[in-house]
Amino acid sequence: MQDPNILFPADGARVRSLAAALYDTVKALPIISPHGHTDPRWFAENKPFPNPTSLFVQPDHYIFRMLYSQGISLESLGIPQSGIHADPQATADPRAAWRIFAENYFLFRGTPTCIWLDYTFANLFGLSERLSASNADATYDRIAEKLATPEFLPRALFERFNIEVLATTDAATDSLEHHRAIRASGWKGRVLPTFRPDAVIDAEFVDFQQNLHQLGEVTKEDVSTWDGYLNALRARRQFFIANGAAATDHGHLTALTADLAPDGAARLYARIFSGKTQSGDLELFQAQMLTEMAGMCLDDGLIMQLHPGSIRNHNRALYDRFGRDKGADIPSSTEYVRSLRPLLSKYGNDPRLTLILFTLDETAYSRELAPLAGHYPALKLGPPWWFHDSPEGMMRFRQQATETAGFYNTVGFNDDTRAFLSIPARHDVARRVDCAFLARLVAEHRLDEDEAFELARELTVGLVRKAYKL
Amino acid sequence: MQDPNILFPADGARVRSLAAALYDTVKALPIISPHGHTDPRWFAENKPFPNPTSLFVQPDHYIFRMLYSQGISLESLGIPQSGIHADPQATADPRAAWRIFAENYFLFRGTPTCIWLDYTFANLFGLSERLSASNADATYDRIAEKLATPEFLPRALFERFNIEVLATTDAATDSLEHHRAIRASGWKGRVLPTFRPDAVIDAEFVDFQQNLHQLGEVTKEDVSTWDGYLNALRARRQFFIANGAAATDHGHLTALTADLAPDGAARLYARIFSGKTQSGDLELFQAQMLTEMAGMCLDDGLIMQLHPGSIRNHNRALYDRFGRDKGADIPSSTEYVRSLRPLLSKYGNDPRLTLILFTLDETAYSRELAPLAGHYPALKLGPPWWFHDSPEGMMRFRQQATETAGFYNTVGFNDDTRAFLSIPARHDVARRVDCAFLARLVAEHRLDEDEAFELARELTVGLVRKAYKL
Amino acid sequence: MQDPNILFPADGARVRSLAAALYDTVKALPIISPHGHTDPRWFAENKPFPNPTSLFVQPDHYIFRMLYSQGISLESLGIPQSGIHADPQATADPRAAWRIFAENYFLFRGTPTCIWLDYTFANLFGLSERLSASNADATYDRIAEKLATPEFLPRALFERFNIEVLATTDAATDSLEHHRAIRASGWKGRVLPTFRPDAVIDAEFVDFQQNLHQLGEVTKEDVSTWDGYLNALRARRQFFIANGAAATDHGHLTALTADLAPDGAARLYARIFSGKTQSGDLELFQAQMLTEMAGMCLDDGLIMQLHPGSIRNHNRALYDRFGRDKGADIPSSTEYVRSLRPLLSKYGNDPRLTLILFTLDETAYSRELAPLAGHYPALKLGPPWWFHDSPEGMMRFRQQATETAGFYNTVGFNDDTRAFLSIPARHDVARRVDCAFLARLVAEHRLDEDEAFELARELTVGLVRKAYKL
Repeated sequence: MQDPNILFPADGARVRSLAAALYDTVKALPIISPHGHTDPRWFAENKPFPNPTSLFVQPDHYIFRMLYSQGISLESLGIPQSGIHADPQATADPRAAWRIFAENYFLFRGTPTCIWLDYTFANLFGLSERLSASNADATYDRIAEKLATPEFLPRALFERFNIEVLATTDAATDSLEHHRAIRASGWKGRVLPTFRPDAVIDAEFVDFQQNLHQLGEVTKEDVSTWDGYLNALRARRQFFIANGAAATDHGHLTALTADLAPDGAARLYARIFSGKTQSGDLELFQAQMLTEMAGMCLDDGLIMQLHPGSIRNHNRALYDRFGRDKGADIPSSTEYVRSLRPLLSKYGNDPRLTLILFTLDETAYSRELAPLAGHYPALKLGPPWWFHDSPEGMMRFRQQATETAGFYNTVGFNDDTRAFLSIPARHDVARRVDCAFLARLVAEHRLDEDEAFELARELTVGLVRKAYKL
Repeated sequence: MQDPNILFPADGARVRSLAAALYDTVKALPIISPHGHTDPRWFAENKPFPNPTSLFVQPDHYIFRMLYSQGISLESLGIPQSGIHADPQATADPRAAWRIFAENYFLFRGTPTCIWLDYTFANLFGLSERLSASNADATYDRIAEKLATPEFLPRALFERFNIEVLATTDAATDSLEHHRAIRASGWKGRVLPTFRPDAVIDAEFVDFQQNLHQLGEVTKEDVSTWDGYLNALRARRQFFIANGAAATDHGHLTALTADLAPDGAARLYARIFSGKTQSGDLELFQAQMLTEMAGMCLDDGLIMQLHPGSIRNHNRALYDRFGRDKGADIPSSTEYVRSLRPLLSKYGNDPRLTLILFTLDETAYSRELAPLAGHYPALKLGPPWWFHDSPEGMMRFRQQATETAGFYNTVGFNDDTRAFLSIPARHDVARRVDCAFLARLVAEHRLDEDEAFELARELTVGLVRKAYKL
Repeated sequence: MQDPNILFPADGARVRSLAAALYDTVKALPIISPHGHTDPRWFAENKPFPNPTSLFVQPDHYIFRMLYSQGISLESLGIPQSGIHADPQATADPRAAWRIFAENYFLFRGTPTCIWLDYTFANLFGLSERLSASNADATYDRIAEKLATPEFLPRALFERFNIEVLATTDAATDSLEHHRAIRASGWKGRVLPTFRPDAVIDAEFVDFQQNLHQLGEVTKEDVSTWDGYLNALRARRQFFIANGAAATDHGHLTALTADLAPDGAARLYARIFSGKTQSGDLELFQAQMLTEMAGMCLDDGLIMQLHPGSIRNHNRALYDRFGRDKGADIPSSTEYVRSLRPLLSKYGNDPRLTLILFTLDETAYSRELAPLAGHYPALKLGPPWWFHDSPEGMMRFRQQATETAGFYNTVGFNDDTRAFLSIPARHDVARRVDCAFLARLVAEHRLDEDEAFELARELTVGLVRKAYKL
């Protein structure tokens, strides 16, 4: 029987205690991280992290973009330079950079960065005071001291974090040397590569022609032909699979797909390969390649991930000095329904394909993504991505996607991070927000309590294992 | 005096008790259903519904699209095939299909489907246990047994549901034979037709030329001319009015309207009629016809409804086998402000016209629809539609539209359903969500209690009766 | 240490009491109004406001558009006519118009208009009863009586409202006579002009050529040349600065910017000046001028505001009779990321520039505006604008922008109003909603209590003073 108060707002204290009860059953479950950007070298070499600044500040674009937005130079933070106008000598004293960060920590109020860092400082380093100018040095010293201990070596942290699987993201031509070294070492931590072929599919990618050449080299395929190119990609996928890969990943400007006849595709590739392209060729080639990649997934069983909609390197001057991934990638409006149709017409009805969609355009949740995923057997919805990997963002995702897509067309959480130490914090936030969402449904009698407990576990470990076949 | 705590969050228990008090005053009010897709034949013939599967599963695209998205074939559910590759012999044992549905009922957790079905199972069939594999057969038997009783004949249910008006949706060329039979039968249930001319306005509609021909036949007008075509539509509108129609309905891909000079419109129609169209003609013709239809509303007093933004039959392979309305209609971004301007320039200032706008693009609520409806006398906002006819969706509509459009530019609830048995549940959800919204406004001192009670009644029966002149 | 209940929903009563405690510390802070549309003449002349209708109804498009949407004519409300088909004799008895307003006050239920008016009626006029037909006359008399007293003269109200700064919005060619008169009068109220050059930048503006001519006249510059035109604008900016201006403001249809080479810009201006434009010239010129204006801000230190996305005068017939600003300006989808790139490439990395962005398209908050403002030193986010200056709208802004932009890339509240008497109410609403938002963060342990108290003050007076250099 439905409760007479179904759909009426619930008492906050009741929702809180339900959320806490749900969370109690999932908080200690292992971390499964099927998509992210940590460096496999860390686990291969297992050397100490050098210092607090290089660990927390310099690789984390969430942090330095916010400082930069308030007029703090990237030079003063010691952000590595890699653009065409880079000053390779540029450096900054890590402690001085840390002090700038600490003085300006208040800028992060209300952002997930605070939650992740406070969690990490407290749980890993026993630091219970809020970071500020006054404790900058003491904090720095405390973290530096801990980083020098065996308990803070990458593999020790991996185990302490209770990570069941950690996927990295790797270029199609990568040697996977670190992944191989990890496996060869006998260490049991599962660090899996992910096949990310953007650099050999996006003709505007840095050194694209060289990347193609390298693809030919490592596969001994003749990449000057369409068939050779496809065979080279197939070969690299097999190499990734042999080294543990579960998935591919594609970062495109749009979600456009195409389904050209083979001869048309071959002619298009010839123009791409020769560099003598016509207007629209670059986008069309990327579109065609998504469909090709989906077809290969049917053959080799890899899971496919699509991350469209980021306008990369929006700030040209900054890019010319510092290079990619410096907090100047800005989302844009992203269309899925017409864009994905060619791929879906070809493969969307095949339940053996799993294509996991991400978005930076939250308007697509209820309008496009949930209706698509709530229909096509091949589609699943990835968790809130990047800017939306935040308490409010996660709650909006559940509120806007669940009623149409259900829970079972979603795939659990991705931390998608370069910041290794933030991984437990990020998963903890996701678990808490999911439990809060489920608790509200129960308190409003929209879900039974036993269902909520089952779902809490599914959202934490069940769906991700199933979707990525882990 | 404003309360000193105005706009501060309220205690959940207080909001809940206010919501319950508001709901108590509207829960038993009659159901007014001015837009939907039930079959008038049911009420004309008043025969028993055949079995639980044909009643709950096979006509409900909310249900089978979700099962399909998880890899369950439509064949196994016995979904009728009507596409060009249909297998007309295809069938499935209703009980076997029901078992599949029951086993997978957990997929609907968090979706409105659960709320509607649980309500219906409990209130109509006395089933208090959650549907699952273990009670699939018992549930099937219980429902089948009930359906065979006189209390479950269509007319008896109509009366039991306390339906004051139920509007169906009917092609422009429909004979309205079932509506006429209902009226001729002496039964007092008000089942009204709605004039939906898409099939004779959208030149891409299945059998468009044949539909035009049929339009000429039934009206004895020469539809080879623009004037004859318009006269034919006028005649059909009169026929619908004579059979009780209150409204028209238009399902277009976009909200585009046009206001061509008569001779330009005539030339355009000549191209449409001949099938020798130029690029853009089809869309322009639909656009022009919306304005023509609005003009006819001024003459004959029908209420006009516009449902734009659904990309129909997105899944070609599925369409070719199963035909329309199989859960593969996907929303897309929809523009209203520039699109409606031609129509509004001509008729928007005339308060005798009522044009009710719906959307599948929730971003339009606060950006376009509420500002338009909060200005033009001819415009009103329909309730959240289709995917958004859900607790979260309804709440977003109230939160995003009310502050600019007010309550009085909205028109109450539409259930818009083919699933007759779900009608009480759907209206109950709408009443509950509206009461929850009003209760929060009262608890935050943004509305007085007496206003909330008045509004609860308006949102349930007042505004719909006024908007549709019922 | 993070609270064990971090991110779980909080008890409403706890959030309410926290919100009230925060509000207690900011409710009496001075009002800083850096952007609005009050008439400087009021403060220059300091004459009594004529009557309740002319004060509350006739200048407030929030009010008359809603009445109009429900079929009430603007003539009956005595809205002044200024279009090409105006009836300059048209008038309406103010009391009769007030009665119409009072009878229909229920239409505003759930809208911010009620909150603003109830606040104003109660706090300024001691009217505690809800406005209705039955108290229309008594209310009118009471307000009229008060308006005749010295305490209700514009300057007295300014002081009573505790206004620290009030910015008006003024044409580039304005004589600023009233601002000069205020300064010359010795009265200490700070009423600042704002430089709004739309009428000499938008070639579709009414009397554009005449406006250019007037610009040349008042500056003695030869505006027939690109250099002369730019010099004329520089001169007017200096004139505004000499009369206290802190900022510029730009109302454009889109956020498009351009960065033409000087000779290309000069040729474009020559076409604009001659009226012999090519397709796209008007939009391109506006785009180029935004970049020029940003450059001038670096030279003269004015703050730059951009308000894009309103389709002005959507209702042509109404415009022809009543003129601009009659509630028929409708928002549209607005793109920022690509549009602003030319300007940002040139000036976006310069922290000396402050460009404050507004939007009528809420989808841009999380997708475009927060990521841009969370990166570029020159960008800040203006508060929710126009239709979104409402409790739900403000809360959505905080929820959608804060996690990426933080609080410190926002600039406090703008009332943006022509309705002088509503200013305290509008600021009160903003303070309450901000406190409610902060309180929730504290109750969910996402912010410490001391941080919330600090932020409440920053959001009320700190950030606005800093952003506008007041």
